[in-house]
Amino acid sequence: MTGRSAAVDVALSGDDRQALIAWSVLAEGYDEAAAWLVDELGASAALAWLIDAAKDPVAATVRLAPLAPPKTIDKAVAAAERWLRRLGEVDPAGEMARAHAVGARLVTRLDAEWPTVLDDLESRAPYALWVRGDGDLCLLMDRAVAVVGSRAATAYGEHVAADIAGGLSDAGWCVVSGGAYGIDAAAHRAALTGPTPSVAVMAGGVDRLYPAGHHDLLTQVMDGGVVVSEVPIGYAPHRSRFLARNRLIAAAAATCVVEAATRSGALNTVNHALALARPVAAVPGPVTSVASGGCHRLIRDGLAVLVTQAREVLELAGPIGPDADEGSGDGFGSAAERAAFDAIARRGSRVEDVARGAGLAIAETFAALMGLELAGKARATDGVWRRRETTQN
Amino acid sequence: MTGRSAAVDVALSGDDRQALIAWSVLAEGYDEAAAWLVDELGASAALAWLIDAAKDPVAATVRLAPLAPPKTIDKAVAAAERWLRRLGEVDPAGEMARAHAVGARLVTRLDAEWPTVLDDLESRAPYALWVRGDGDLCLLMDRAVAVVGSRAATAYGEHVAADIAGGLSDAGWCVVSGGAYGIDAAAHRAALTGPTPSVAVMAGGVDRLYPAGHHDLLTQVMDGGVVVSEVPIGYAPHRSRFLARNRLIAAAAATCVVEAATRSGALNTVNHALALARPVAAVPGPVTSVASGGCHRLIRDGLAVLVTQAREVLELAGPIGPDADEGSGDGFGSAAERAAFDAIARRGSRVEDVARGAGLAIAETFAALMGLELAGKARATDGVWRRRETTQN
Repeated sequence: MTGRSAAVDVALSGDDRQALIAWSVLAEGYDEAAAWLVDELGASAALAWLIDAAKDPVAATVRLAPLAPPKTIDKAVAAAERWLRRLGEVDPAGEMARAHAVGARLVTRLDAEWPTVLDDLESRAPYALWVRGDGDLCLLMDRAVAVVGSRAATAYGEHVAADIAGGLSDAGWCVVSGGAYGIDAAAHRAALTGPTPSVAVMAGGVDRLYPAGHHDLLTQVMDGGVVVSEVPIGYAPHRSRFLARNRLIAAAAATCVVEAATRSGALNTVNHALALARPVAAVPGPVTSVASGGCHRLIRDGLAVLVTQAREVLELAGPIGPDADEGSGDGFGSAAERAAFDAIARRGSRVEDVARGAGLAIAETFAALMGLELAGKARATDGVWRRRETTQN
Repeated sequence: MTGRSAAVDVALSGDDRQALIAWSVLAEGYDEAAAWLVDELGASAALAWLIDAAKDPVAATVRLAPLAPPKTIDKAVAAAERWLRRLGEVDPAGEMARAHAVGARLVTRLDAEWPTVLDDLESRAPYALWVRGDGDLCLLMDRAVAVVGSRAATAYGEHVAADIAGGLSDAGWCVVSGGAYGIDAAAHRAALTGPTPSVAVMAGGVDRLYPAGHHDLLTQVMDGGVVVSEVPIGYAPHRSRFLARNRLIAAAAATCVVEAATRSGALNTVNHALALARPVAAVPGPVTSVASGGCHRLIRDGLAVLVTQAREVLELAGPIGPDADEGSGDGFGSAAERAAFDAIARRGSRVEDVARGAGLAIAETFAALMGLELAGKARATDGVWRRRETTQN
């Protein structure tokens, strides 16, 4: 039983886990209209809506009308046509069987192995994850740092990537990367030699370990770690899937860019991290090296903190993980958080202003603000931090 | 006529220019008590006070009492003993003759060639400068960027120093440095090939071109540029004089550190620049290079801006120099700025005086003065505004 009838069965059954598999077939990870619809209605109700929309577009539009501004509704209704073209491919049982055949398992937001950090993607969280490897995706991703950079890395960049990734692994932090040539590979390789395994996020299905030249490396990653993708088994790693994939890497507690030219794809991951208000670290290099140009730009623009070693990366990532302070009794995670909170002006402050006011280094300030954000005490919009007044304190 | 009798003659004559020579013999550039005394009383009156203090310390203390808190007075009175030990060395005519013999000239704060930027050192400005070379010290220093770094520079550091110094010279900016091995030398050498000469600030007398290995380089610097020192001819470049010398380098519009280990002496220059609220630029390098460790630290701590080329250094230095004004044809941003500029008295004016003279409201005057300051045309010290004269406009 496949195709339209399978989709109808899933919709009727109300089985959200199966409906999420259906949606990972119907829509790509970068499809914001689908993400909105599933987030708004729930996976199986969204599927039911789609099936109804095929029969009666006007009634479908009317049903969504109360939920969002007309523009959003129009987008979803228009996208329905696109999704419906793939309705015949919906085959949750088949997807599961194909996954099983390659030793992959399904992890959805309904499962215990779902990483908490992905929830920060909100409506852009993936529908389903296909996971290979004997690591626990949740345990790994929830204490992880993304180490990313150019495929066209220099020997210097690969050396530093290995040094930082090795240091993260030694400190009990998982390295998340994309399994690509250059910086990604150096990071995964270094993590293999450390006590904490890594996570490789694929743009295509986890049956195809991509690039082919990294088949052995990615197989080794699965030993303790995981290879994961949001697209079903058999799917090709298209360019747009790489861009969507990057948001999953950026969900890590912090993103460290080791080498990136000014137009490197690694900067796409940085943009995702910044959108998630995750701290970004960048490794400097010779100013004569184009491979470090993007890193220097990020630091100059105040978007990334200059880091030279794993310890400095963890200063940024720290407060998100289990290492975070136990608290000092006043509701603040640390003295730095208290100072940073006090330094936020009523009308909002930029990081550098908070740093000056609190007497902290930029990196410390970043870490403290992240802690405040996690504690719901502060929030950034367009780089401006504001206090969130709560009943506590 | 030398020694005590010369000092007495200078004090009696009230010749401040000669008294400043005397003070540059009596006290070192890092002697804050002397700096305070000369600033407070004026050079010749301070000398007269010192001569009196030798005879009647109690009366000398009483005379200073109204001028400052007891702690400051005590320091000056205690230091008098130290200064008096050198009173026999005071010999302004001899200093002038020795300078003349090596082709050096005297420039004091009373002379037209005195760089305006040194006034920002306030009481820590040098008493006298001994200058060799056919450049105009004022024109050079008032449109200058300090390029500093380790003596133990790498080939990379020297390459970047040359690149940045060459770019500054090409843009019409003078490079100020210390003439030392490594980064300093690379910067001076690059400036020699550009249209704008450089300034080398010595820790010892300008008769001794230090280090000896740079005799030829420093001789070349004098061709269009200058070699300058605050200590008289014949004085040795002691370590403490290097530290005091660094504040003169840091008086440039901005300081760019090219390579510096975490404990490099170049960071002392940075501290002076920060104390003067001058922007600091730092060039990154490989994180594997200890020679860049200090630069990375400065950037991480938010004390320096990461720069990769001369243009980025000039973005920091820019507003102080003549590049700043877009101008209305006469080099002024507005009629109010023109009027405010004209209303600033030669010896400096308070805002209310400028307002009266210019026929502007206080608020308009403030705005105009801020514009003039940004354009590098005026500058305030302790509420007193002074013009900054340049040949252009």
